[in-house]
Formats: sequence, C-alpha cells, structure tokens
Amino acid sequence: MTKFLFRQLYDAETSTYTYLLGSNKEAILIDPVFEQADRDLKLINELGLQLKYAINTHCHADHVTSTGLIKSRLPHVKSMIAKASGAKADIHLLEGDKIHVGDLEFKCIATPGHTDGCMCFYLEKEGLLFTGDTILIRGCGRTDFQQGDSGRLYDGVWQKIFTLPEDTVIYPGHDYRGFTSSSVGEEKKVNPRFTKSKVDFIDFMNKLGLAYPRKIDVSLPANLECGIDFKP
Amino acid sequence: MTKFLFRQLYDAETSTYTYLLGSNKEAILIDPVFEQADRDLKLINELGLQLKYAINTHCHADHVTSTGLIKSRLPHVKSMIAKASGAKADIHLLEGDKIHVGDLEFKCIATPGHTDGCMCFYLEKEGLLFTGDTILIRGCGRTDFQQGDSGRLYDGVWQKIFTLPEDTVIYPGHDYRGFTSSSVGEEKKVNPRFTKSKVDFIDFMNKLGLAYPRKIDVSLPANLECGIDFKP
Repeated sequence: MTKFLFRQLYDAETSTYTYLLGSNKEAILIDPVFEQADRDLKLINELGLQLKYAINTHCHADHVTSTGLIKSRLPHVKSMIAKASGAKADIHLLEGDKIHVGDLEFKCIATPGHTDGCMCFYLEKEGLLFTGDTILIRGCGRTDFQQGDSGRLYDGVWQKIFTLPEDTVIYPGHDYRGFTSSSVGEEKKVNPRFTKSKVDFIDFMNKLGLAYPRKIDVSLPANLECGIDFKP
Repeated sequence: MTKFLFRQLYDAETSTYTYLLGSNKEAILIDPVFEQADRDLKLINELGLQLKYAINTHCHADHVTSTGLIKSRLPHVKSMIAKASGAKADIHLLEGDKIHVGDLEFKCIATPGHTDGCMCFYLEKEGLLFTGDTILIRGCGRTDFQQGDSGRLYDGVWQKIFTLPEDTVIYPGHDYRGFTSSSVGEEKKVNPRFTKSKVDFIDFMNKLGLAYPRKIDVSLPANLECGIDFKP
C-alpha cells in the first residue's frame, strides 16, 4: 500500500468533513470550508506539504468552499469540481478521470442525484472512498433541490458504490451524530435508505419535508464561482 | 498488519472522542460517553461484534462514562481503568499490562499528569496510540485539579510517548477545533506546549486560568463508581 498522510477535519458549524491527503510532499484538500481555511493551511504547512489541488465533491448548498480563498493565497493551487456541477474551477472533472497527488491516484466516479454534479473520489489501492453527500453514514444527501433526483441517486449508489469491495472505507461529506467513517459493506447492509426498494426510496425522499437550507442563498452563488471573491 | 475494524466516534456536547476497535468478532470501546451508549451499542450490533471491554483512559471530569450503563445491558462486558485512578472497575490496569481483543494487543502506558491515573493505550503493530487527555492535538489536558501535575505530565510525554515511532498515529480524548488525529512526530515538532522547556511548560500550565469544569461535580463522583447507577 502507498504510504500516505491522511487527516479528517471537521467544521462543527456546518457538520462538514474536509479531508487532507498527502503523498511525496504533495497534498489535496477535499471539500474545504471557507471559515477553516486558516486552520487547514496551517496544518498543511506544519506537515511540510505543498497543496496541489482543492477539490469539491459537488457544489455545496450548506457551506461556502474555501477553494477561492486558498487560491488567492496560494495561486499555484488548482481547483477541481465535476463539469456537470456547472461551477467554475481550474479543472473540470468527468467520470473516469484520475487525479494524481504524489503516489496517490483518485478515480472520479460520477454519482448524480443529490445534485447533478456529484462525484465520489476513490482510492482503489488504499480502499478509501470520499462520498460527499452521495452516501452519508446511514443516510444520504437530500434530493429536493439543486437538480436532485432520488432515482438517479439510488441507481448510482447501487451500480457504482455498492459494487466496490465491501471493506472500502467510506468518508462522507457530513455527519450529524458523531460518526466519522463507515464501509461499503456496512452501508449496503444497514443504511436505512438504500436498503429500501427503489420505489420506496423515492417515496421516502419525496416525503422528507426538510427545511429550506439555512445557508443556501449565500452558499450556492458563492460556490458556483468556486468561492472566488466571496466575502462573509 | 492485523486486519481490524476501527471507528472514531464523537460526542459534540463534550467534544469527546470514543473509539471502537474490533478484531475476530471481539470489540473494545475506549472512553465511551453516557449519552451515546445507544448509538455505540447499536453500531457494535450492526457490525456483528461482541463487546468485550469498556475502558477509560482516566477518570473523566467533563463527561460521565457509559461503562456502567453498558454493563447493566451487557453484563459480560468488563470495565477497565488504571488502578491509580482510584475508580471502580472490573479490571484495574498497571503500567505494562496488555489487553487482548481478537488479534489486537494494547499496551498500557501510564502517563500521569492530567490526573494520577491517566493511561495511554498503544497498538504497537498497528502504530496507533490512544492518548486520552495526556496529549491533545497541539495541546494537552489541564493539570489544575484532580491530582494534576504539569512536571509529571511533561516528563511522561517526553519519556514514554515522544520516544515511540514518529509515524505513530495519535487519537486523542478530545478536540475542540475539528482535528481528529495527529502523529507522534507531528506533536513532538509543533505541539506549542510540549515544545517548551519543562520550566516554561509548568509556568504556562500554571497561568492558564481555566474556568471550573462545567460537569465536574456530576462527572467525577459518577466516574469514580464507573458510571454504575448514574442517573442523568
């Protein structure tokens, strides 16, 4: 297995997980949060890493990304997001693209459903999967705005995620109950949403009746611009 | 390396980390929190594990342990804590003791200083160290009550923790800024407290001027009884 550095980071205000991975002095930040940019950049510096990429699993509606802010401080950093997100970025990702950071190779797996442009990032050799809001631990991202589509989400998860090795560790984009990771086998077996039939899943998602996202009116426009020029 | 299951769990109310480790169907919970007992036992059940031990790194002043509650539900579970803690438990641990859970072997490392009875639990083969409040990420537990002793804490950390392999992953008992793990090499290099001289460390700890712990009057008496008969 590739020797690499891994840090899971949490933003308590929005219950968001950010991931830092490093290999051969290069680093990538997955789903970094605007308010945590100082913390994250300090950590990267302390670890002697050079940040290469700042990447988002999708165009978030619940927090503003720090990719724009990070690029204003470290202009060599490239931002990345799925092309289908419609958001600005230096590099637009497509299904099957590979991202190299030191010896690490991330495979891009398109899993639309929570949003049009959702992607999971898969470290096949290391057996790690960063799922954003596609799968949460015992849950999933909502599908009632931002091109949400329960049926597409369900199909993508069953066809592309639950077919990965069962011991693949799942690192989600959020958690609200203190869980930090799960596995493909575990979610396939006990996730109360995806263990439903597709029809029941769609019906369940339709009836969730969730509140309007608290930060969506600020977050979405900012994130479509990759957080560039965002002023809190 | 031993194949094992690992879950880091968080209690947001007290910023406490609980750790679940499993091997060969056996499991151990490190520093479980009273209010999270249902979550933790459900997870253990979902993972098909049998809980063998519930263990505390020390007698906590900031939350009530769930070891008593867990034992009331699963009477075969044995509670463990350092003998020097003065707290009740089924098994009292001494420096150098080894705890076996499936194929995992934890070594007990006594590191008094935050309290008299603080212990770190070390998985040497796997390179993981559970430090409780002895070392926090870029910090450490306070030393101004409960037999706290800054000099002992400093010596223990330098002699017993910072002499472990630098890539040993540190899993602390708490974090308040969204960090989930660190490493021996990292803390030795940049922990702002332990990189001071011993004299300066003691002086710094003496001047912290922290508030009286919010939950100490409930937590300490309950934890000295291993949380048995605790009613919230």
